[in-house]
Amino acid sequence: MIGVCHFSPIAMTSSVSVRINDARHLRFALYDVLDAEGLTALPHFSMHSRDTFDAALDLAQRIALEKFAPHNRKSDLNEPLFVDGKVALIPEIGDAVAAYNEAGFTAASIDAQRGGMQMPFMVTTACDTLFAAANAGTVAYPSLARGVANLLLSYGTPTQIERYAQPIIDGRFFGTMCLSEPQAGSSLADIRCRAELQADGSYRLSGAKMWISAGDHELGENIIHLVLARIVDAPLGVRGISLFIVPRFRVDPDGTRAARNDVQLAGLNHKMGQRGSVNTFLKFGENGDCYAELVGQPHQGLGYMFHMMNEERIGVGVGAISQGIAGYLYSLDYARERRQGRHPDQKDPATMPIALIEHADVRRMLLAQRAYVEGAHVLALYSARLVDQMHDPLQRDRSALLLELLTPIVKAWSSDYSLRANEMAIQVLGGYGYTRDYPVEQYYRDNRINPIHEGTNGIQALDLLGRKVTMQNGAALRALIDEINLDIDAARALEELKELADQLGLARDEILRASQHAAQRMGAGDVRAALANASFYLQALGHVCIAWIWLKQARIALGADIDADFAAGKLATCRFFFATELPQVWHWCKIVVSDDSALTMRDGWF
Amino acid sequence: MIGVCHFSPIAMTSSVSVRINDARHLRFALYDVLDAEGLTALPHFSMHSRDTFDAALDLAQRIALEKFAPHNRKSDLNEPLFVDGKVALIPEIGDAVAAYNEAGFTAASIDAQRGGMQMPFMVTTACDTLFAAANAGTVAYPSLARGVANLLLSYGTPTQIERYAQPIIDGRFFGTMCLSEPQAGSSLADIRCRAELQADGSYRLSGAKMWISAGDHELGENIIHLVLARIVDAPLGVRGISLFIVPRFRVDPDGTRAARNDVQLAGLNHKMGQRGSVNTFLKFGENGDCYAELVGQPHQGLGYMFHMMNEERIGVGVGAISQGIAGYLYSLDYARERRQGRHPDQKDPATMPIALIEHADVRRMLLAQRAYVEGAHVLALYSARLVDQMHDPLQRDRSALLLELLTPIVKAWSSDYSLRANEMAIQVLGGYGYTRDYPVEQYYRDNRINPIHEGTNGIQALDLLGRKVTMQNGAALRALIDEINLDIDAARALEELKELADQLGLARDEILRASQHAAQRMGAGDVRAALANASFYLQALGHVCIAWIWLKQARIALGADIDADFAAGKLATCRFFFATELPQVWHWCKIVVSDDSALTMRDGWF
Repeated sequence: MIGVCHFSPIAMTSSVSVRINDARHLRFALYDVLDAEGLTALPHFSMHSRDTFDAALDLAQRIALEKFAPHNRKSDLNEPLFVDGKVALIPEIGDAVAAYNEAGFTAASIDAQRGGMQMPFMVTTACDTLFAAANAGTVAYPSLARGVANLLLSYGTPTQIERYAQPIIDGRFFGTMCLSEPQAGSSLADIRCRAELQADGSYRLSGAKMWISAGDHELGENIIHLVLARIVDAPLGVRGISLFIVPRFRVDPDGTRAARNDVQLAGLNHKMGQRGSVNTFLKFGENGDCYAELVGQPHQGLGYMFHMMNEERIGVGVGAISQGIAGYLYSLDYARERRQGRHPDQKDPATMPIALIEHADVRRMLLAQRAYVEGAHVLALYSARLVDQMHDPLQRDRSALLLELLTPIVKAWSSDYSLRANEMAIQVLGGYGYTRDYPVEQYYRDNRINPIHEGTNGIQALDLLGRKVTMQNGAALRALIDEINLDIDAARALEELKELADQLGLARDEILRASQHAAQRMGAGDVRAALANASFYLQALGHVCIAWIWLKQARIALGADIDADFAAGKLATCRFFFATELPQVWHWCKIVVSDDSALTMRDGWF
Repeated sequence: MIGVCHFSPIAMTSSVSVRINDARHLRFALYDVLDAEGLTALPHFSMHSRDTFDAALDLAQRIALEKFAPHNRKSDLNEPLFVDGKVALIPEIGDAVAAYNEAGFTAASIDAQRGGMQMPFMVTTACDTLFAAANAGTVAYPSLARGVANLLLSYGTPTQIERYAQPIIDGRFFGTMCLSEPQAGSSLADIRCRAELQADGSYRLSGAKMWISAGDHELGENIIHLVLARIVDAPLGVRGISLFIVPRFRVDPDGTRAARNDVQLAGLNHKMGQRGSVNTFLKFGENGDCYAELVGQPHQGLGYMFHMMNEERIGVGVGAISQGIAGYLYSLDYARERRQGRHPDQKDPATMPIALIEHADVRRMLLAQRAYVEGAHVLALYSARLVDQMHDPLQRDRSALLLELLTPIVKAWSSDYSLRANEMAIQVLGGYGYTRDYPVEQYYRDNRINPIHEGTNGIQALDLLGRKVTMQNGAALRALIDEINLDIDAARALEELKELADQLGLARDEILRASQHAAQRMGAGDVRAALANASFYLQALGHVCIAWIWLKQARIALGADIDADFAAGKLATCRFFFATELPQVWHWCKIVVSDDSALTMRDGWF
């Protein structure tokens, strides 16, 4: 070997270390804004208290910092390899996942009778923010597994639960969701994977699935794939899709691992980021012997899968926000430490350079990051609380309705704007931010998948405007507006917030007008035109929601017995969002109502 | 070795190939919109014609596709290494640079008497768009060298020109610009590099320089560093900075290469992108013997360097636009080829899936990319033409004024929005776009440096609002507005464009109000407040300029003897920009005039 110095040790002029969390913000969000303790009044959560929540958060923080964060860059530099027929991950991934499992996080919100902690989803979501901020690639393994367990707990038979879900809860098995195929990325109506009923009631599966995260690895004893496929002679389209359990290794009735199933790793995808999370191309039934079990009823698979899908969509939002938070905090600390330049009215070179944070334009980038990621974070936690509220019969229907509406916003808005935040974190660091000696460029790359996977943001926008806004005659949007109105009224009572409350009221009126316009157009059959600007609509409604969440935070911060600087910061960030972001709602609503330039553009004109 | 399959060959379902250019657009921009042929009426360019321009463009296109594009990904995967004391590049870089040199592109706009082609800068800029779109990392070597030659031709002594510039023109030497230091990235007032006069009139230099692109390599016989440093006892700040020639190898009076100079490679920076372009940390005079020659007068170095710097800033804009164009064209071709999903009013799964481009939301992303990158491209070429117009005594002063104003916009707006375009190109490809099997993720990474280097975009904004807008009592802005007014008037005469022309007139009024407001505030000494929102101002004035350029293109396309689909596309893209982007000018101007949230935010509130 010649003397190769690949990573020469230079220029680490910064002593800034990675932070995954601003503890004041997280506690404020959970306890002051979203009343986590209030959930303990529900019988389902009655064994919990602020103490158990804090203990979980502290434990998550510790494991995230000790086991997840240290190998975040190493994972990026050492992609999973296909070696001797197996996927080889760096060993730190296995150690971290084991620690996560052992501490009970895989089963954190699963019922105690199954061995879980029966913790509110809002609290476990907060914990997952910490893990994802520390290492987005590694946390993907247990969180996908948990999604599989939750789906099976809802729709599996008792035997399936015992055989496939319980070992996941126990940390022995892992899992995946297999939807996309190479020829049909987002278009599930066109999937071709095929299932044939056998005499014993099982099925034999054949076909290929693309973009399968955690599709092959040696972290556990088994991998349970949840696969969408068509039973022979099923109807075309989404009404002919069924859901199957396809274990990597068959499982004998007594639970012992049996022979390898006919599932083959056909390739690894090599990605821009999230390199620690192995992403695979899988082939099922290449040898005609892929064992599969039907979940629930034939042709109902898409509905079941959306149970997991909606959970994963909140998870995508949370993952994106986590990268946003990590980038925000890193660039904040860096801007405090690094001295460079002077104020524009201070030309005397004999004066000491000022800290980056003293420059108004740097503060702009820090404020924008904070407004995006803390706003999205509280909205995501609010949405997670809606899941918990379903344990309350009085709140169940309304919570479900709100959750349906907010899910595409939490997924798409959060991922779009957290990515914007990561871009700004790089900018705050300047040239250093562009190097791989600092973590911020990786945050961007790891985050870039989030507007794409689990339904692209364009698809989220169609879901929001084409389905959620109009369902039940607009009941979900009305429920949201009612919630917003409560906060507008409460804020109007405070002198500091009156003007902001009025501004949000006007934005609310504007989004209502645009919603009604689109609904009427759809009602009149002009569906394509109504939905052509759905992405602008999602941005507009997302901005209204984030402004609402900031107004709520500002009001509660002003009223709470809380550090005065912290309260002033919440109020200032709220004002920043209202001044620099909220006014775009009018612009986007106008596009939704009246612009047809994307609709009428023709292929031949490009 | 175990059997490692790192890059498994999967899922290349696309036959789309890289395009670096839409020839119709480029010809339209150069000949129809910007009257390249008109330049041949100037004596300096009288040896040229449309034929020589076309020949240069065709040659550039051919070399870019044959020599630059094929190793773009290979460069990304094989970073420069420090091997046995030397920087090792992949051999394709040297081959491409040699072809570029041999074809005359390094010297393309240099005077014929020096061996150059004496080509208009607008045409060579168009050629560079092609090279950069094919391979941003490789073209950095000759284009930096050219910048050094141009600076020396302007400010060097005849001996310095002969000794250091001519060999660059001849393709034997390369060059760098050395401004930043580890402790003072953007803040040149604080550089510490030190120069000591010797008895023979030369200097001895000592200090360190960071972020030096092309700082060490074996592509040529020598590297000429242009280094900013302080002569012993020079005044503090920017008024004490001098410019020095520091050759990697000393050059004897007869031009032969002599001993190695005391310039040491102290490290390589490992970047998010642009990995083919070696970026270095250099130490000068570690052994007390770094030979340097003063350029021009002592303490005048910054002014000279800005000669090169302004050229490079246009170059940064052009580089960014090139990545934007490549991403736009790739995602366009992909969207035409790939079939997926159906219209929202077509639920019948028996129908054939439609091409991605049939989806309105995909067209939105294609239109936005096109609006950004073709708009920025024409504005950059317009700015390059201003350089050429300086050869016309009648246009010299006014062209210089306009160029001063437009340079920060071409640098910052183009890099911000071309990056946004690259992000959308990834989104159009979905999961595939996130993999390294497709080029679009690299375009984003390669492009991410452009808002940072040659003065961050925040610094461009301060330069624009704090200096360019107010200089000579606002003469530059008035000259720009005069140009815009000519196009507003011309467009108003056409029925199809009347409404757009009126809209641009209102936006012009709005930006003028914001400009006056800021100027008054600065005049009143309230400089910090006036400049606090300079980045929003740059976006606003940038949007007005791009809208102007689109209105110009639409008018000329409608009037020209041109393919009807092409003209319709230009008009539709113009309309799209006016509907979805231009209205933000009002929002941003309002922030400039009245928002103080970034200004008043305090460190302790974060």
